[in-house]
Amino acid sequence: MTVSTLGLDADDTLWHSESHFAVTEQRFGELLSPWLPGEEAARRLLERERANLRIFGYGVKGFTLSMIETAIEASDGAVPMDALQHIIDWGKEMLSHPVELLPGVAETIDTLGDQYRLLLITKGDLFHQESKIAESGLADRFEQIEILSEKSPDQYRRVLERSRTAPSEFVMVGNSLRSDVLPVVDIGAQGVHIPYGILWGHEQVDCDHLEATWHQLDEFSQLPDLLTRLNGSD
Amino acid sequence: MTVSTLGLDADDTLWHSESHFAVTEQRFGELLSPWLPGEEAARRLLERERANLRIFGYGVKGFTLSMIETAIEASDGAVPMDALQHIIDWGKEMLSHPVELLPGVAETIDTLGDQYRLLLITKGDLFHQESKIAESGLADRFEQIEILSEKSPDQYRRVLERSRTAPSEFVMVGNSLRSDVLPVVDIGAQGVHIPYGILWGHEQVDCDHLEATWHQLDEFSQLPDLLTRLNGSD
Repeated sequence: MTVSTLGLDADDTLWHSESHFAVTEQRFGELLSPWLPGEEAARRLLERERANLRIFGYGVKGFTLSMIETAIEASDGAVPMDALQHIIDWGKEMLSHPVELLPGVAETIDTLGDQYRLLLITKGDLFHQESKIAESGLADRFEQIEILSEKSPDQYRRVLERSRTAPSEFVMVGNSLRSDVLPVVDIGAQGVHIPYGILWGHEQVDCDHLEATWHQLDEFSQLPDLLTRLNGSD
Repeated sequence: MTVSTLGLDADDTLWHSESHFAVTEQRFGELLSPWLPGEEAARRLLERERANLRIFGYGVKGFTLSMIETAIEASDGAVPMDALQHIIDWGKEMLSHPVELLPGVAETIDTLGDQYRLLLITKGDLFHQESKIAESGLADRFEQIEILSEKSPDQYRRVLERSRTAPSEFVMVGNSLRSDVLPVVDIGAQGVHIPYGILWGHEQVDCDHLEATWHQLDEFSQLPDLLTRLNGSD
């Protein structure tokens, strides 16, 4: 069947996100360096984030609370009080950071919008995601905007029902195999993986042991050509 | 026109929410009592929450971060480190607190569901709201579930468009005049106000200076009778 509808992930697919987390983690490592060597702060933070995920969900506010907990615990309460205010300020910086589109995104979305129905499908904090979508200037290119708490096969199934789209005519595009590709392959749609330079530890999967088929691209601007090939009309 | 569709708010309309914030604020006041007298902690916290609202949005995680900031600032950094971990633990308790339905809600929703299309329309943290909706056992009674970042006339207008509902056949029910009643009256629908014992400072409006018409009830279970009267078929 012909591809009619594209789902596009947002963070690290349309605009930079993980790079801001990386900068903050770097600062966090420096702050905790009197108590934890090198990579240890990042490891402890990821562990804490994972433990908190089922209570906090995704997003910068939960990340900030996890940093505070890790700092108190790792320093055994010896971290200076103003360091905790710095951590909160880093969280606020991340939440108010200007949206920076990835190369070629704006033009490519214009091209794609002429031929396909576009859905924006992202996960995380509702308020922050809405702010970024509004600020990106891309909102009106999308027929539907879906902010999910988790990107599971079931959640994708519901999005396709809402938009009256058959899985066979749907292609999802994103930087995370775990969230953007594998669950859509699972429901009979196609996935396009466009890696971003950095991937959050929680999103990592071991590619060597996957049994699935997906399309891999280097850059967002290669999407129109891939879709033309998929639709066999080049 | 006949009322066909009801929008129901969730927090403090279907289940308890503000009472959990009140318990936490009480503990917070005690924790800060060496530095701030009586009501002053609550006042400073509300001030901080309001200032943070445009960055954090609504919800428990932002509330928790605002408590930490207020505690550090009000004590001039003298609050003990383990008190900050307590604050985070209170936030986690609130996020994992069991859902307690308000009296008569389950039965009344069953009655209403036989006669009207039901939409659940809530605002706040996506992840926490979804968890509560799932846990409430009420999710399948609703044709549509809408979690909004803000309850403005525009957002209500979009909800009604998505559900193909004319404002004249829509009634919104909730505990906040500011969020559940005034914006729907603004777009030509009707609002039902059912106050909850406690109202968050940010939601308060001065009733004496309002020019609007709405229905006021004491209890959720009075809804079916009111709607029957509105539809003139009693």
